[in-house]
Amino acid sequence: MLQDYIVDLTGYTGAFVDELVMSGVTEVIISPGSRSTPLAMVMANHPGLNIKMHVDERSAGFFALGLAKASRKPVALLCTSGTAAANYYPAVVEAKLARVPLVVLTSDRPHELRDVGAPQAIDQLGMFGSHVKWFAEMALPEASASMLRYARTMAARATKTASIGPAGPVHLNFPFREPLVPDVTSQGMFTGGRRSSKRDFYIHITTGDRKLDSFILDEWASELAEVERGLIICGPQEDPLLGKALVHLAESLRWPILADPLSQLRRGEHKNGWVIDSYDAFLRHPVIKERAVPEVVIRFGAMPVSKALLLFLGQFRDCRQLVVDPDGGWREPTLSATEMIYSDPDHFAKEVAKRVSAIDPKRQGNWSENLLELDARTRAGMVASSVQIEGLFEGRVFTELGKTMPDGSLLFTGNSMPVRDMDSFFTKEGAMVWGMANRGANGIDGVTSTALGAALVQSPTVLVLGDLSFYHDLNGLLAAKLHTINITIIVINNGGGGIFSFLPQAKEADQVAFETLFGTPLGLDYEPVITMYGGSFTRISSWEEFHNALQKSMDGKGMHVIEIPTDRTDNVSTHRAIWENVHQSLDPWLAEVSF
Amino acid sequence: MLQDYIVDLTGYTGAFVDELVMSGVTEVIISPGSRSTPLAMVMANHPGLNIKMHVDERSAGFFALGLAKASRKPVALLCTSGTAAANYYPAVVEAKLARVPLVVLTSDRPHELRDVGAPQAIDQLGMFGSHVKWFAEMALPEASASMLRYARTMAARATKTASIGPAGPVHLNFPFREPLVPDVTSQGMFTGGRRSSKRDFYIHITTGDRKLDSFILDEWASELAEVERGLIICGPQEDPLLGKALVHLAESLRWPILADPLSQLRRGEHKNGWVIDSYDAFLRHPVIKERAVPEVVIRFGAMPVSKALLLFLGQFRDCRQLVVDPDGGWREPTLSATEMIYSDPDHFAKEVAKRVSAIDPKRQGNWSENLLELDARTRAGMVASSVQIEGLFEGRVFTELGKTMPDGSLLFTGNSMPVRDMDSFFTKEGAMVWGMANRGANGIDGVTSTALGAALVQSPTVLVLGDLSFYHDLNGLLAAKLHTINITIIVINNGGGGIFSFLPQAKEADQVAFETLFGTPLGLDYEPVITMYGGSFTRISSWEEFHNALQKSMDGKGMHVIEIPTDRTDNVSTHRAIWENVHQSLDPWLAEVSF
Repeated sequence: MLQDYIVDLTGYTGAFVDELVMSGVTEVIISPGSRSTPLAMVMANHPGLNIKMHVDERSAGFFALGLAKASRKPVALLCTSGTAAANYYPAVVEAKLARVPLVVLTSDRPHELRDVGAPQAIDQLGMFGSHVKWFAEMALPEASASMLRYARTMAARATKTASIGPAGPVHLNFPFREPLVPDVTSQGMFTGGRRSSKRDFYIHITTGDRKLDSFILDEWASELAEVERGLIICGPQEDPLLGKALVHLAESLRWPILADPLSQLRRGEHKNGWVIDSYDAFLRHPVIKERAVPEVVIRFGAMPVSKALLLFLGQFRDCRQLVVDPDGGWREPTLSATEMIYSDPDHFAKEVAKRVSAIDPKRQGNWSENLLELDARTRAGMVASSVQIEGLFEGRVFTELGKTMPDGSLLFTGNSMPVRDMDSFFTKEGAMVWGMANRGANGIDGVTSTALGAALVQSPTVLVLGDLSFYHDLNGLLAAKLHTINITIIVINNGGGGIFSFLPQAKEADQVAFETLFGTPLGLDYEPVITMYGGSFTRISSWEEFHNALQKSMDGKGMHVIEIPTDRTDNVSTHRAIWENVHQSLDPWLAEVSF
Repeated sequence: MLQDYIVDLTGYTGAFVDELVMSGVTEVIISPGSRSTPLAMVMANHPGLNIKMHVDERSAGFFALGLAKASRKPVALLCTSGTAAANYYPAVVEAKLARVPLVVLTSDRPHELRDVGAPQAIDQLGMFGSHVKWFAEMALPEASASMLRYARTMAARATKTASIGPAGPVHLNFPFREPLVPDVTSQGMFTGGRRSSKRDFYIHITTGDRKLDSFILDEWASELAEVERGLIICGPQEDPLLGKALVHLAESLRWPILADPLSQLRRGEHKNGWVIDSYDAFLRHPVIKERAVPEVVIRFGAMPVSKALLLFLGQFRDCRQLVVDPDGGWREPTLSATEMIYSDPDHFAKEVAKRVSAIDPKRQGNWSENLLELDARTRAGMVASSVQIEGLFEGRVFTELGKTMPDGSLLFTGNSMPVRDMDSFFTKEGAMVWGMANRGANGIDGVTSTALGAALVQSPTVLVLGDLSFYHDLNGLLAAKLHTINITIIVINNGGGGIFSFLPQAKEADQVAFETLFGTPLGLDYEPVITMYGGSFTRISSWEEFHNALQKSMDGKGMHVIEIPTDRTDNVSTHRAIWENVHQSLDPWLAEVSF
């Protein structure tokens, strides 16, 4: 009877894991535990699966997220019962909002040991609430033909549900009774009647994309072709091919594209002549805010990073604003959109572009030319101001990276200040660099682990983040050691929460209270921790040192941490001075042009 | 109008925070953020509240848990919007199962900025699911008389709901619009018509304990008085006075008490002559398991740590087993209980003891005497075996601590092996030491932070945990630095997951796979991290060094980490050899007695 149970356990978990692989999962991040033994051992024995261990489930969750984000493929997570799974929560939340496919597998006590004070047993059913796309409680292991089919169906369905738009996390909970050790020598572990040919009698899942009907596209094309003052805006998104379609659209409409640093549009294989990258700076100028009023805006991707752009968009109540979303979501915090278009963005852009080109609209004014000129002037001003600063100005990190990072590299940025500085100073001029950040929930947690996961796919990878964010996920560095990952981590150490100095809280009379509640200086010297995790550490004091360290790290193997010590108060005043200078330099030109 | 809003914001949050203090909250752990500014600033200005910052919300959650556990008072947590709150999840789960009162306050975007892709906005409504006792979404700030009353009522209700049995976490979510800075110079911040006298017209919450009717107690007393072969069992619980009541009960019934190391019964102000502490070892003996069969068992507290005891209890189907729970819970994984008694345990024990004493039952056999003798022999054997081992045997840590720790100190243990070794080797002989662990969900996460929170209350505090658990919550050490906490941390470094070597997984032929999936050696030298957080580090190589380091750390200030390097494989064989030896030494005596 025990032997029977082990046959059930092995066959059932074997069928599930095998189908996971058949469905496209090749990577699984496992955290050690006892209850998860059946799946862990079977996974370790599947030839199609790469397993990577991570002891801290919180970091493991983000590690899987980064891997899934960069590879654009679903990644599986496996942990034991109890609070282990609760540690996945931050990464699960981020995956849901950032639309990243994760297959979260938790192991659990069987029903008779739940809610009775048994050790390491918590309520895992639906424990991620609205933050997963799908939850299912799995049946107890059984190797009958129909239950093997069930196990395979659940694996296929989970993987596909995670992957189809909007992609996101799914959660399967596996109850396991003891004994927990499967027979991994069993011949039948990965069979169960599964496919000898491509079209067998087993379930396949096929998905189509949302595409608008031709007559709707005709209408949009003729309507948009008439509009002179249009803007295309692309926020964070990871499709490397969308750029080409949006450039076609821009060319046909003769509208510029405001491209977020995470849109993959500033730099890419497409031509970027229509791309505007310095809007965050020029939209802070009161004259431009007032005069550069669009008639139509078409947004793609998630909401851009720039707060100036968000406020700009929110002020128009008589401008048509289209939001194109492939997945039926609602990424529109400005309350100013007039059209929500649920369509594959590539298809929409290409089809509209084709139709508008056929119309070949004439443009009277200089709307695009002026905006592109404005952008060029602003960009030049921002870059010039940045590189003029001899001291360690935080924004200059991105100006320097923009010049140095090679084709095909990945720039991952932390939230709060780094991603904003990337927006301001990482221009469209330079090599083809992939841009990424956790912009689902914009957390300062899990950033290092996400970047490490992405670095498994993309090389070289450079991560830029602040010291609070670096502290938050110090545990994540274990992955760099265990899996010998190549990464450059640039820690901007301004001794606490730099972004708060930009907020009204900083004007409080009581600076002691401000430092306690918001500044939160930690006073940590990170060098020893880096060493503990097998990395190298360099604290730079000049841009020359920065360049040397950066180049050495990108050429080398392993983890390299470069710390840039900066000052929070100086940083705010420098940012403000740069905007002020750039705005002033624009004024003579602005006095001459009409938008 | 802006000024009106700030009056609303200040008055509303002021009333809430003031009532929180009125309801008994004196400690709040805050993680920095922008959205939480109104509550954070008001809290920092309340004279009755101690605020402590912690940047990592996961550690902050456990830090608050430890503080609440040791002080037996509700503690508040405050964080910003987004994934910050998701990081509380593991501590929230532990608090629910361990019945620890936490008031979790999360700040959120207002309704119009939810689920629309606004930055740092996630679905926070009910985000802890079944793992909190109560969730409420707060109204937007408003300082009308009735809304100030509402704010105060919610604070009082949340605190009381967290505190009444079963204690646990509650969650309030606060939507805040910008501007977020309250006017902390406002005179009226903490008034709002609140109590000049004890009995004003504001809400007070009064709770009674569950007490059985006298006739039911009479019945139990007369029934139990007739039983010779009875056992009292006390699992983990934190009431320091329960020991006295249970000793009365034991004396009256003449039954021994099997006392978990976390029951506060092995050592306390009560007499511990009836207390048995070595059952985990003797219940592994096949003869005892078979012959020491009780007729009645009365359980108090949570389920004990000992797996031997759990299996022992589970084997009886014709033994009455009473589970006394003050809070209407269900802590009974053995499926062998016959009576669930929802009553204040102190009241139940005292009242039954009084009635049984009046009956003054006569006992024929030597049930208690034999068990106490068996216990004394086992204890002596375990202690002797442990101290005979010259090498760094993990169990001996607790034998040594048992002799050294002073009255009123706190011994906090990690899960997996340390708490089991405490069970085996921390006997009832020695000073009055408080015992604590996270036995709600038995996670290896958050242990350091919980102990640090407890160390704010209890001094000296000694934490013993394994290296994986220590790694998992390294971030928690920040609290020791920021709040200069005195603690001794003993890290048993067996290079990975020691408990797995005791499980069937370890018998797997493929030792490489075992080490990868279960052993997970991290190869980390923790010394530099300890130094980074301002602690001292000593790696000991003998028991003499251990004693010196221990004494020095308990006498000194600050954080002291003592690492004991051990070997996982040796550890298993030593444990098994000790049980074997002790069992053999019992055999001659067992041959002579009859239970």
